[in-house]
Formats: sequence, structure tokens, C-alpha cells
Amino acid sequence: MRHPEAPRTAFLGLGAMGLPMATNLVRGGVPLTVWNRTTAKAGPLGAEGATVASRLSDAAVDVVLTMLTDLRDVEEVLDAEDGLLEGWLRNGVETPLLVIMGTVSPPGVQSLAERLAASAVRVVDAPVSGGDVGAVEATLSIMVGGERADVDQVRPLFELMGRVVRHLGPVGSGQVAKACNQIIVASTAMVLAEAFSFARTAGVELDPLVELLKGGLADSEMLRQKGWRYLEREYGGGGALRNQVKDLRFALELGRREEIPLPMTAASEQFFTALVAMGYGGEDHTAAQRIYEITSGADA
Amino acid sequence: MRHPEAPRTAFLGLGAMGLPMATNLVRGGVPLTVWNRTTAKAGPLGAEGATVASRLSDAAVDVVLTMLTDLRDVEEVLDAEDGLLEGWLRNGVETPLLVIMGTVSPPGVQSLAERLAASAVRVVDAPVSGGDVGAVEATLSIMVGGERADVDQVRPLFELMGRVVRHLGPVGSGQVAKACNQIIVASTAMVLAEAFSFARTAGVELDPLVELLKGGLADSEMLRQKGWRYLEREYGGGGALRNQVKDLRFALELGRREEIPLPMTAASEQFFTALVAMGYGGEDHTAAQRIYEITSGADA
Amino acid sequence: MRHPEAPRTAFLGLGAMGLPMATNLVRGGVPLTVWNRTTAKAGPLGAEGATVASRLSDAAVDVVLTMLTDLRDVEEVLDAEDGLLEGWLRNGVETPLLVIMGTVSPPGVQSLAERLAASAVRVVDAPVSGGDVGAVEATLSIMVGGERADVDQVRPLFELMGRVVRHLGPVGSGQVAKACNQIIVASTAMVLAEAFSFARTAGVELDPLVELLKGGLADSEMLRQKGWRYLEREYGGGGALRNQVKDLRFALELGRREEIPLPMTAASEQFFTALVAMGYGGEDHTAAQRIYEITSGADA
Amino acid sequence: MRHPEAPRTAFLGLGAMGLPMATNLVRGGVPLTVWNRTTAKAGPLGAEGATVASRLSDAAVDVVLTMLTDLRDVEEVLDAEDGLLEGWLRNGVETPLLVIMGTVSPPGVQSLAERLAASAVRVVDAPVSGGDVGAVEATLSIMVGGERADVDQVRPLFELMGRVVRHLGPVGSGQVAKACNQIIVASTAMVLAEAFSFARTAGVELDPLVELLKGGLADSEMLRQKGWRYLEREYGGGGALRNQVKDLRFALELGRREEIPLPMTAASEQFFTALVAMGYGGEDHTAAQRIYEITSGADA
Ligand SMILES: NC(=O)C1=CN([C@@H]2O[C@H](COP(=O)(O)OP(=O)(O)OC[C@H]3O[C@@H](n4cnc5c(N)ncnc54)[C@H](OP(=O)(O)O)[C@@H]3O)[C@@H](O)[C@H]2O)C=CC1
Ligand SMILES: NC(=O)C1=CN([C@@H]2O[C@H](COP(=O)(O)OP(=O)(O)OC[C@H]3O[C@@H](n4cnc5c(N)ncnc54)[C@H](OP(=O)(O)O)[C@@H]3O)[C@@H](O)[C@H]2O)C=CC1
Ligand SMILES: NC(=O)C1=CN([C@@H]2O[C@H](COP(=O)(O)OP(=O)(O)OC[C@H]3O[C@@H](n4cnc5c(N)ncnc54)[C@H](OP(=O)(O)O)[C@@H]3O)[C@@H](O)[C@H]2O)C=CC1
Repeated sequence: MRHPEAPRTAFLGLGAMGLPMATNLVRGGVPLTVWNRTTAKAGPLGAEGATVASRLSDAAVDVVLTMLTDLRDVEEVLDAEDGLLEGWLRNGVETPLLVIMGTVSPPGVQSLAERLAASAVRVVDAPVSGGDVGAVEATLSIMVGGERADVDQVRPLFELMGRVVRHLGPVGSGQVAKACNQIIVASTAMVLAEAFSFARTAGVELDPLVELLKGGLADSEMLRQKGWRYLEREYGGGGALRNQVKDLRFALELGRREEIPLPMTAASEQFFTALVAMGYGGEDHTAAQRIYEITSGADA
Repeated sequence: MRHPEAPRTAFLGLGAMGLPMATNLVRGGVPLTVWNRTTAKAGPLGAEGATVASRLSDAAVDVVLTMLTDLRDVEEVLDAEDGLLEGWLRNGVETPLLVIMGTVSPPGVQSLAERLAASAVRVVDAPVSGGDVGAVEATLSIMVGGERADVDQVRPLFELMGRVVRHLGPVGSGQVAKACNQIIVASTAMVLAEAFSFARTAGVELDPLVELLKGGLADSEMLRQKGWRYLEREYGGGGALRNQVKDLRFALELGRREEIPLPMTAASEQFFTALVAMGYGGEDHTAAQRIYEITSGADA
Repeated sequence: MRHPEAPRTAFLGLGAMGLPMATNLVRGGVPLTVWNRTTAKAGPLGAEGATVASRLSDAAVDVVLTMLTDLRDVEEVLDAEDGLLEGWLRNGVETPLLVIMGTVSPPGVQSLAERLAASAVRVVDAPVSGGDVGAVEATLSIMVGGERADVDQVRPLFELMGRVVRHLGPVGSGQVAKACNQIIVASTAMVLAEAFSFARTAGVELDPLVELLKGGLADSEMLRQKGWRYLEREYGGGGALRNQVKDLRFALELGRREEIPLPMTAASEQFFTALVAMGYGGEDHTAAQRIYEITSGADA
Repeated sequence: MRHPEAPRTAFLGLGAMGLPMATNLVRGGVPLTVWNRTTAKAGPLGAEGATVASRLSDAAVDVVLTMLTDLRDVEEVLDAEDGLLEGWLRNGVETPLLVIMGTVSPPGVQSLAERLAASAVRVVDAPVSGGDVGAVEATLSIMVGGERADVDQVRPLFELMGRVVRHLGPVGSGQVAKACNQIIVASTAMVLAEAFSFARTAGVELDPLVELLKGGLADSEMLRQKGWRYLEREYGGGGALRNQVKDLRFALELGRREEIPLPMTAASEQFFTALVAMGYGGEDHTAAQRIYEITSGADA
């Protein structure tokens, strides 16, 4: 039973990530209102005990977590007729806390926070890594930016969804951390593709090579989880690389604003843009290897 | 007591890597003749029970392992007056086996093997990764190229020096594998520098960032072993990045011969060339971060 | 005396480019209303016979040319209270023609045109190259996008301001052409810096080198106009490279939207970002040579 | 009639460049001995009045100009049995002058000069640009390195073959200048490909674009001579880009030795390596546009 003074909590966006994340909150004992644009997707959560809101304004409670695609979508649920801003006003929520968990632009989330400050809305950004598996298993890494008091208020929620939860600085800092993550992951995907294509072209046996690489400084989580994809040229069934390109562009956008050159990221982003152009945007980022297959003539 | 029919073994080059490697052979029970250009360095091995050769030709026995800087140096010990080629002839060694363990050019080692075939010298290449610590602790990864029979003959020696020993194909294949290793390691050093410089410029806290990165796909052995160097800007006391540049150039050289583009490696090699030009060639490869310190004006 | 049926024309934005351009219109016999945010700058044009508008809405006539910094600024003059949109309505101008001559985002100008179509405003984009010298001397290249009829209507105006006037396609095409121009110019600035730094480091005499380069395929307008800057390391007094970075970003933005990789431009943009970060954003783009001075240690 | 004291001159290598160059010497009145590995090719020169040598040693006269593929080939004619070195000795030529006009490695030509100094052979390097058309029309640019006195001795010969002849410094300097030329030309070929692919993808009309580009800072000899190739996608019948790749590698090799980073050149070289790998090594360097056709999916 929830304490009368406990803050009411809502979760918006029940997609591939949001649905399992919200489920973990409910199973962890959080009385939760959920909302999804396509209401049908909320069904399983009703069965788990969540309150399904059919109107956005009904989800305008003390703490609102969103797991939506992009910032544009967050702004839509805020500004819609009968949306969050109207709802908070009508429901008498004076200092609501909005927690943005999708991967969005770091400067964008800061501007939004500034705009919402005028309406006394507090903003925390908390993007995640770990994929849908991490979402289901509550083993996400959660990268948090915001005021310390705000972050502390929702930390117990984060701990029901993730394994490593860290506060990195003011609002936007979570998105910066996620951008760092993507900078490393995307270029590693490229570099492994380069190394394996090189080895294959030079005629070296690949299985023992992988074992050797794993034994030293060249080892990485990418190699362990996805090394087989490069060897078997199997690029289906992972996340879509087009989403990673989106995230790289956030990094480049911030790099420009902060005046820090990101040459490796800029190069990787161009190659991933080529992959999207060639129609491979829906494949796993290990499809980076296609660049080498094509440009070495192996694919001709 | 050694079996009369056991092949006689020699080890040439007792530098930072060679001395501990040869020591592990002696301690593993291998009757070993050792030779070093600067003879004084062989002293400790004499104390361990090795036979110290003062003349190169005395080391011209059945199996000769070399741990010398570059191929040029291997050619010198072969062709010198009173060198290996002369010694093998004089000592009646008919099909000597030469094991090249330094990191050298893949096409170069193949050409050398072709030339030596005329003198019935068999060649195995077996470069290593793991650094001087791996050499001391016998935990090297050893990447082996050559004829299977030749490799099998010296595998017991490799197992006294390393933990992961793998045969990858014909002579030169070991060097290709080492080049793959360096392709990955060098660009990872760059990419981590890029990510941490980005995070620092954007004002994010770095310690929690490292914990988050370690929790997911961005994790790597480089991050685990050397993440602290980026955070503390401490670039001294590791291997010299100028050696890694040498190895990247072998990769690029082979990439050209085999017609496989290596754009990420080419970019990294240029940045490392800049580091050498600026006088940082003796630092650890994490000094890649200096590129970002300088170009973001943080260093001005 | 102007024909009663001739369209009335206004020019907004009398900066480094706009003032001489508007002057050439007036001197060419065009009855012109001019407006500038900082009204004082319009003085000289009043003396030349132009009508100086003190309120934006007074400049809301049949044809309005703008030479403002960015699209944001164009939107400001449109949407301002008593701005163009209000003015056109009040003045009974039913199908006004807006000619955007500043360098702005290609997708941005297309979106704006779509929005304005709802108010029956026709849009032509017509960015220029040739610098302030070309503006004064009426030798600009003018790159025009828009409906053919609209373009034909204002072509006589363009011919009073430029030497080469070309229509390239629908609205936004002018900006695409300008982006092409900047793609070439920026990377040429980098490549010349690379070649001259290479030659200097290798100890070759630079003056005869320039003569040789001019004699063949390496010749370019950049080399002819700005070769001396590389030789004398003189980077002051040209346009500010920070403006070129702005334009490169428009190119990269469009490249992403159209899914065409631009690896050379992406690399150049990173180096120019570094120059801005190091405090050289106000210098001529030949300051690209600083990158090489710094990274070759010549500057240490 | 030649003065008895005039130095005797020979020309070695009568290929696409060498034949017209030697012809211009003969027509200019130089009594010339010519030699070619495939003797048949020397026929036309015999008809013009040259002395055709069937043995290399017969061409071992005071001044020997070579227009051979690579340094390896120069070394072959020097060291061959009955070759130049033997011939000079036998013919009593005490301080022969060797003029290397092919494009070869700058450090390589310096090493060769050092080695030949021991035999009192003086070396001048004098690579050319201008293609076979320039060779026929005697309008080559000739980039000369060597001792001033040596250069002055052969300057009259150069002036019979080229239009712009410049001395840039000690031996090797000519090759450095040629490398500069190639650095600029290769990256310009890439950048124009990038700009035109961008424009085409964005749907802009290309003919007026070329006119606009020619009107300003984006203009170049490459654009003027080869702009049509990009527009018509016609990559046949020029020089083979594989030769340009060779020259870029000389530049990169020297860049490493001199410790000057060449990031744009390194990127271009990778793309050209890809073109060679894909089987386009025999095409004109404007085939750089294929990279964009492929990676933008236009070619799929
Ligand atoms: N998938 C992954 O592996 C990871 C994803 N992320 C990030 O998490 C975020 C969500 O990703 P994911 O769950 O995979 O995406 P999905 O496409 O599966 O789900 C998107 C959700 O957002 C909702 N939505 C989108 N636009 C609007 C809108 N305008 N108004 C209202 N609702 C909207 C959708 O509603 P509806 O059901 O009605 O369409 C749906 O609930 C993204 O930012 C992504 O980059 C982060 C880490 C890993
Ligand atoms: N250090 C490391 O972390 C790693 C190094 N490597 C590779 O291992 C090889 C050896 O490296 P390392 O031990 O660190 O180098 P060192 O400089 O410590 O030792 C080099 C050895 O080579 C000998 N040598 C060099 N040139 C000649 C020559 N012309 N004739 C005879 N002997 C010669 C030296 O003799 P003298 O004592 O007389 O100078 C010395 O014994 C290199 O190829 C390196 O790239 C591979 C993995 C890791
Ligand atoms: N300079 C050059 O060599 C070239 C420039 N261009 C492009 O031309 C455009 C103009 O450049 P340039 O003339 O050099 O720039 P300037 O900075 O000299 O002039 C800018 C003009 O825009 C006006 N302006 C800016 N913001 C606003 C606003 N929000 N509301 C009203 N007026 C505004 C300024 O008014 P105020 O006087 O009140 O500040 C001024 O008249 C830019 O897009 C530039 O990229 C193109 C080719 C060459």
C-alpha cells in the first residue's frame, strides 16, 4: 500500500524499451499510471496492475517518465491539447518532475528544460544503454543529468530498471554520457570491421584470430558480443544502425556547440550514412563490414 | 639431461621482451644458447643456466628464436660475417628453423622466407602481444604463421612463454594477426581520447561515466587497463607510441598490397604521426588525448 | 518616373554585403525601399535616392530582397509585430515575392517556403559568392532556386548585382549550389595548407613551387588569389572562417537528409571546428595551415 | 655541328612520355644517344637522327636522362651487367650526370644519390607534370632538384622539353614538388566528385552549377579540364589513377619520415586504394566519383 504522501508516478511510451521498463516498475511495487499513443499496447500493463490512462492529462501527475523516440515527441505530449502542461495545471501539480529517458539531443534537452522552468517543471534526463534485453532484465545502465535533489527523488525508480545508475551533472549530462557511449561503440564497430576485413583479405584464419584478440588489449565487449557477426557476415536481428546514426549526430552537434573536434566520430558517421543510403539502415551496426566488402571489391 | 636427438635451441635478442621470454624457456627446462649484441645483457641468463654465445655462429643451431627490433636486424644477424647463415653451414645444420618473434612487416617476412628457402632455412613468424608484463608472467598471446610441421615443432617453446598460442596460416600470418591487433588497439586509443575529451569539454563528471561505460557495449580492455590514464592525463611509463606507429605502417603497407582500404587506421596513423612530430613519440598511446587537448584549445 | 504597373521593390539588411548590393540596384535605376535593423546604416542609400523605411511593414511591397545573416533573422522580419507578413496583408500585396540572398540552410529555406505558401508568399533563394569586393563591383555569382516565373521576374535585379546569374532548380537549389561551392573551397583551403606545409617541412623552395603548381592541373583560383597567404603565413583581413564553417554544416546537414556521404567535407569541417576552438574563427580560411604548423611541431 | 667539348647526352626509356621528350631534344639540335629495353620503340628516333644504342653501356655517356617507371628500374639500368656503371667506367666518363625524370620516391632518390656519390656519379631529379600532351608539345612543368651547377648544365635540355622549369633545392626536391602537385590534384579530384555527387543527389542542375563554380574561388584547372567527366560520368582515356596512388604513397612515405601529418592525403589515398581494389585502377582519377555513386546507393 502506498503512503498517502508518496509522489504519484506515470510512464509514457510503451515501445520496445518502455514496455519492459514500466513493467519492472510495476513489479517493483510502484503504483503507476501508464499512457501510450497507441493505447492497445498498454494492455499487458493493466493486467500487471498499472492504471491505464486514456487521456494524456490523466497522466499529468507528480513524476512523469517518458520513453519516446525523440525530443519532438516529448514536446508533443507536453504541448498537446489536453496534454501534460494543461494537465498539471488542471490537476494542481505545482512542481512536476519530467524524466526524459529516450536518447535525444543534449543541447535540445537543455533548451527544453529552460523553457519548462518558466512553468515550474523540473527536468531530469536519463537515457539508457543495454538494449531491449537490458530493459527486460532490469540491467540497464542509466545515465542521469539534473539537479541532485530531483535525481535523488527518482533514483529508487531507476534502480528498479537498471544495474548501474550514475548521476553525471546538470540536466543534459545524461545525454552527453550516452553520446560518449555511442562515440565509442560506433567507431569500435567500424574498427572491428576494418580489422576483420583486413585479416580475411590477407588470408588469415579468423577463429584463432578472435581468440588471440580476446587475450589482450584488443579485447572489447563489442568483440565478445558481436565478433561472430563479423565472421559469419550476419547483420540482421540487432538494433537498427539508423538509430545509432541519430545518436552520433547528437554527438557531432554538441561537439560543434562546445567546439571540440570529433574526427573519428565524423568519419564513422559518414560511413554509417553511406550504409543507410545503400539501404542497410535497418541492420545491426556490425554491417559496417559491408563498407569494406564493397570497397575491397570482395562484394563485386 | 637432454635427449641426444632433441633439437638444439638458441635465443637472440635479450631486450625488454627477449630477456624475460628466454628466461621462461630456461626455467621451463629448455637447454638454451643465448646471444645478444650487447653481450653484458646475457649475464642473468648465464646465471639461470643458459649457454651464453659470444659469437653469433655459435648460436647457429637447429632452432633459432629472434626477438629483435625490425627485419633489418634479423637480416643483419643472418648475413653478418660469422653470422647465422655462415654458422649453420659450418655447424652442419641442414634445415634450420628460424622463428621471428619481433613485430615486423608481413610482406617483408614473406620475402625473407622466400629468400631463405634457397638455403633450406625454414621460417616461422610468431609476434606477441601482452607487453613486458606478459613476457615476464608468460601470459603472452603468440600469433603464429608458418608450415604446420614447423609450427608444431616449436609449439612447446611457445607454451612456455605465452598463454594463448594460435597458428593462423602460412608464414607472415602471425604478423597479419599482430597488425589486426594494432589496428584495433590504436583506433581504440584514439576513440577513447575523443570520448573523454568530449565529456570533459561538455562538463560531465568522468568517474561515473567510466563506470557506466564499463557496464555496456562500450567496455574494452583498453578502458579497463588504461581508462585512468585519460582521466588523470598521465601518459608516461607505458610502451612508446612510436612503436605502435611502426606497426600501423606495416598494416597500411599490407593493406595497399592486398588492396583493402583501411580508412580508420589511416586516420589514426596520421594523428599518431602528429604526436611523434610534436615530441610525444616516447609516451603511451593514450597520449592520443593530447590531440584533443590541443585542437580544442584546452591546452592553449 | 516608374511605370505604375512595375512591381515595387524593397531591400532588407544593409550589412557588408547588403549595402553595396542595394546601392547597385539604386544606381541601376530601380526605385527601392530599403530597411535595416540599425537604421543609421541606411543613410548613404537615402542619399542615393532610395526610400528609407523606418518600419518593417513599410517595406512589405511586391518584391522583398533580404541579405540577412541566417534564416532565423529572415523569420524574425517576417513574423515580427508590424513585420512583413502583417505588412503585406495590410498593404494589400496579394502574392508577394521574397528573395532570400543570405547563405542559409537548404532544407531550412524549403520548409520556410512551404510555410509561406499558405500565405501566398512566393520564395526565391539566391545566395551569392564573390565577397564584398564582388558586391561592390557587381561581379557576384548568383545561384538561384525557385519557380521559373518568379526567377524571371527578378532576374533583371540580379543582373544589376552580379556577373554570372544561373537558375538551378526549385527553391533551395541556390543554397545547394552555394553549399557545393563551399565544399570545394573549404577542402581546397585544407589541401593547399597540407601541400605547402609538406613542402616547407621537406625543405623545398616555395616560390618556384608555386610557379610550377600554377603551370598545371594543381592550379586553382584559391592558389592564384591566396597562395601568398600560405607562403607568408598571413591569415588576417579576409572573410572569417567561422562563416565558412556555418556553410559546411549546411552541406553536411543536407548530405544527411539526402543520404549522400561527404567524407572530405566532414574531415575539413572538423579541422575548421578545431581552428574555431583554438580561437582562430575570425581569420581567413587559409589559417587551415595552422593545423599543420601545430601538429608538425613547427609551432612549438 | 656539335662542339667537340660539348657533353655527350643519352636518353633511356622511350615510353609514352620518354619518346616525345627525346624527340623534342633531337629536334632541338641535341646529338642524342637513345636506348630502350624494347629496342623496337627506338626506331622513330633513329629516323629523327638519334643514335640508337643496342647495349646499355653504349649509352653510358656524360649526361644520361632516364624516363623509367620506378627507382627499381633506374637501379637496374645502373647495376646491370654491361649497364651504366660498368659502361661509365669502361668509357672513361669520370663524373657522369644522371638525370632521373620519372616520378619516384623522394627519400629513395636521395639514398640512390648518396650511394652513387661513391662512384662520382652526380644525380639530378627532374620529374614532370603535364601528361603526354605536355610531353609532345614541350609544355611540361619540370621540377628540379640537385646541385646548382649540375642543374645549370642540363637546364638547356629541360627548356627543350618544358615550359616552366624550376630548381627547388638539393637532390630529391623535384620529387617533393611533384608529391605536392599530386597531393593537391588527388584531393581536388575527390572533392569535385563529392561536390558534384552532392549536387546531383540534391537534384540541382549541373551545367549552370559548373558555370557558377568557374566564376569564383571554387574554380580550378581540374574543374576546367575535367569538369565534364564528372557530369558525363566518363572516366576512360586519361592517365591511370593507379599511378597517382603510387605518387600519393611517396608523399605519405616522406610525410612519415619528415614527421608531417597529411590527413587529407591519407584519406584520399584510401579512397583511391578502394578504386583500385574495385578494379578501376586503369581509369582517370575523376573515377573518384564512383566512390560516391556506390556509397550513396545511386549505383545499386
Ligand atoms: N531500442 C533500443 O535498443 C534502445 C533504444 N533507446 C532509445 O529509447 C527511445 C525509445 O526507443 P524504442 O522503445 O526502441 O522505440 P519504439 O519505436 O519501440 O517506441 C517508441 C515509443 O514512443 C512513442 N511515440 C513516438 N512518437 C510519439 C509521439 N509523437 N507522441 C506520443 N508517443 C510517441 C511510441 O508510441 P506508439 O506505440 O503509439 O507508436 C512508442 O511508445 C529512443 O530514443 C531510442 O533511441 C535507448 C537505448 C536502447
Ligand atoms: N616492448 C613491448 O611492449 C613489445 C614489443 N614487441 C616487439 O618486440 C620486438 C623487440 O622489442 P623490445 O624487446 O621491446 O625492444 P628492445 O629495444 O628492448 O630490444 C631490442 C633487442 O634487439 C637487439 N637488436 C636490435 N638491433 C639489432 C641488430 N641490428 N643486431 C643485433 N641485435 C639487435 C637489441 O640488442 P642490444 O641489446 O645490443 O641493443 C635488443 O636485444 C620489437 O619488434 C617490438 O615491436 C612486441 C610486443 C610488445
Ligand atoms: N561577407 C561575405 O563575404 C559574404 C557573405 N555572404 C552571406 O551573406 C549574408 C550576409 O552577410 P554580411 O553582409 O557579410 O553580414 P553582416 O554581418 O555585415 O550584415 C548582416 C545584416 O543582417 C542584419 N540582421 C542580422 N540579424 C538580423 C535580425 N534578426 N533582424 C534584422 N536584421 C538582422 C544586420 O542588421 P544590423 O545592421 O542591424 O546588424 C545586417 O544588415 C550571410 O548569410 C553571409 O553568410 C555570402 C557571400 C559572401
